[in-house]
Amino acid sequence: MSVSDRSEAQRAWRRLEALAACTDEPGRITRLAFSPALKRANALVLGWMREIGMTASIDPAGNVVGRYEGLSVDAPTIMLGSHLDTVRDGGRYDGPLGVIAGLAVVERLASASRRLPAAIEIVGFADEEGTRFGGSVLGSMAMAGIVPPDWPARVDIDGVSAGKAVIAFGLDPARISEASRRQKAPLAYVELHIEQGPILEGRDAALGCVTGIAGALRAKVTVSGKAGHAGTVPMDMRADSLVAASECILAVERVAKQFQCIATVGQIRCHPNATNVIAGSVTFSLDIRSLEDGSKSAAVADIVRAFAAIAENRRLRVETEVTSNTDATLCDARLTGIIRDVLAEIGPTVVELPSGAGHDGLNMAHIAPIAMIFVRCKDGLSHHPDESITIDDLAIGIDALSATCTMAAAG
Amino acid sequence: MSVSDRSEAQRAWRRLEALAACTDEPGRITRLAFSPALKRANALVLGWMREIGMTASIDPAGNVVGRYEGLSVDAPTIMLGSHLDTVRDGGRYDGPLGVIAGLAVVERLASASRRLPAAIEIVGFADEEGTRFGGSVLGSMAMAGIVPPDWPARVDIDGVSAGKAVIAFGLDPARISEASRRQKAPLAYVELHIEQGPILEGRDAALGCVTGIAGALRAKVTVSGKAGHAGTVPMDMRADSLVAASECILAVERVAKQFQCIATVGQIRCHPNATNVIAGSVTFSLDIRSLEDGSKSAAVADIVRAFAAIAENRRLRVETEVTSNTDATLCDARLTGIIRDVLAEIGPTVVELPSGAGHDGLNMAHIAPIAMIFVRCKDGLSHHPDESITIDDLAIGIDALSATCTMAAAG
Repeated sequence: MSVSDRSEAQRAWRRLEALAACTDEPGRITRLAFSPALKRANALVLGWMREIGMTASIDPAGNVVGRYEGLSVDAPTIMLGSHLDTVRDGGRYDGPLGVIAGLAVVERLASASRRLPAAIEIVGFADEEGTRFGGSVLGSMAMAGIVPPDWPARVDIDGVSAGKAVIAFGLDPARISEASRRQKAPLAYVELHIEQGPILEGRDAALGCVTGIAGALRAKVTVSGKAGHAGTVPMDMRADSLVAASECILAVERVAKQFQCIATVGQIRCHPNATNVIAGSVTFSLDIRSLEDGSKSAAVADIVRAFAAIAENRRLRVETEVTSNTDATLCDARLTGIIRDVLAEIGPTVVELPSGAGHDGLNMAHIAPIAMIFVRCKDGLSHHPDESITIDDLAIGIDALSATCTMAAAG
Repeated sequence: MSVSDRSEAQRAWRRLEALAACTDEPGRITRLAFSPALKRANALVLGWMREIGMTASIDPAGNVVGRYEGLSVDAPTIMLGSHLDTVRDGGRYDGPLGVIAGLAVVERLASASRRLPAAIEIVGFADEEGTRFGGSVLGSMAMAGIVPPDWPARVDIDGVSAGKAVIAFGLDPARISEASRRQKAPLAYVELHIEQGPILEGRDAALGCVTGIAGALRAKVTVSGKAGHAGTVPMDMRADSLVAASECILAVERVAKQFQCIATVGQIRCHPNATNVIAGSVTFSLDIRSLEDGSKSAAVADIVRAFAAIAENRRLRVETEVTSNTDATLCDARLTGIIRDVLAEIGPTVVELPSGAGHDGLNMAHIAPIAMIFVRCKDGLSHHPDESITIDDLAIGIDALSATCTMAAAG
């Protein structure tokens, strides 16, 4: 494995800083899908790609795509990348890191006039966070040829439709489907991304090998009890929705641990939410994730059974409405094998971990084997201005991505 | 005990309807302290008092007070009454019932040209609900001579100060203290009020003898954990504020039952309250009431100990800030003895119950022995347009109040 010189990581760092300056909210990093800030970011990346000898363009879905040819014209393609959009008031690394690290990999090859048995493409997706258009992940969906037909009609918070936003971005919404790479699918899609969690930091490891992207079930739970005067209804005559909801929330935690899933109740609303009124109804969110679809299903079934028992015991109703449910996506065995080998050369322990967050790989897996490398981030923080990595970890990440790419291209 | 004729209850019923029509929100019953609607209600009650032969006036705190002399000029006074203000969108009976029933008691005496060894005064307090001026209960506080010095400076939701509201009501805020009856304290204060709870309905009893008004401790509890990504932070690395708060809420229920207190968490706020973010902090209200101050203190101490254990176990902070704490006020033994005797003549079982809600008696107890009779209300509902009693229960309530008054006056 080649060892990066410090200047390579410094250059990547400066590029990350330059992208961070592309924002639609001064003082914050806010670069939503198809925004003017994203257009500036795309232009920067396009320039860097061309500078280091790649052919590059914006695809019909707004993704910036650069190509560095392999040893032969008909060589297969290894695609590296991530997304260039951010959440509102986000960080510098969630997304851009994978694009800039990919650029460094190619730059290293190009500066050594070296070509691999595979071409390398770098992609910077235009819409992964889903902040602007109701959870859409258009960039990689378009590349995977799975754009939902209603996508152009979706509207952002200002009432601007996705179709109009695409036009304002200089593209034609009718041609988005042409971004599909189903016909020219890559040999592999490899993404470097910050972990967005505390595992690597806790294990004192710069990098981790991602085993897969967890499936996620999301539900809205409604507890319907009986409101009443906080001072006058005896404890044994109550149907207190908030006490019942509390029992439900503890059941979620207990069952999730039992099935080794990750489950979160992050949102709760209580009605009438007055200090002197027994809660008449409570709604709360349920988010449960696992790399094992079977575990997730079994946990959800157990949770629903626990809710029913609580409802019966407390003489009220608990209703669970599943709003979305996606299966887990496993990373490719060959690619993760390569990454494990690469990480074994870097440090004493190889940390393997699932991704609990969604990524572009979820869509890219429809057309290519996928793999991901996680980079340790401070306090597990992401989607926040304090999102932080070290330049040393960046350098190690570039090395690992480069080695993975070379080994994957060797076939 | 005299038996009411039907026409007496019907007249009281019509008076309650006439008061319900005094509102500042058409289509609802909203008669806040010192509002134009309360002024109309006061005028109605003043008229009825004079009609039935009482001397009557508005006192310097806006309370309407009528007097029916006893057998001698120096006879002691039994005061009957309740409040004429309501919450926003309230009901017909919470408050007015006690005033109108008192009027019926006097009317019965007057129409029989009968006088008791005690004078009877009827009071309709101007401010009990505390809806307008931050929980103030000015009417009975003024009569008890315990008005907080800052009261005139308090402002309502529109920025109008209580002092200005009093002036608009036609009174002088500087003279509120003249409403004090410390010097001419009544022999007894007896209030008929709807139960506002489900106990009498559950026991199939029209009336109940109130043993006392529960003391109440109110606190704001803050749970400070650590926000994080719902998909990426393993269950055993979390400091989830909402799961901890849920455990706290169940502890409140458990301890309250153990100490035979009534405790309610009616309000909860979660931050950032997003479906995909582990709760960083949660605040919730705590309301705990008991007729036994010792039980309440012991329960609160146990709850705080439980919170501390939860905090330690979950590696987060739980802070409890007590915002108010009042002792219980017991009803007078002699008066409740009379009421028990009266109720025993009415029905097979005499229900004795505490009042979990606050009442004017809390303040009146500073200057006089107090007692209360509760009237069964439908579904235990109060502070709501569907607040409901039957005309039969109203008739029985008037009878009981009349008998209580006669026996109390007999000394």
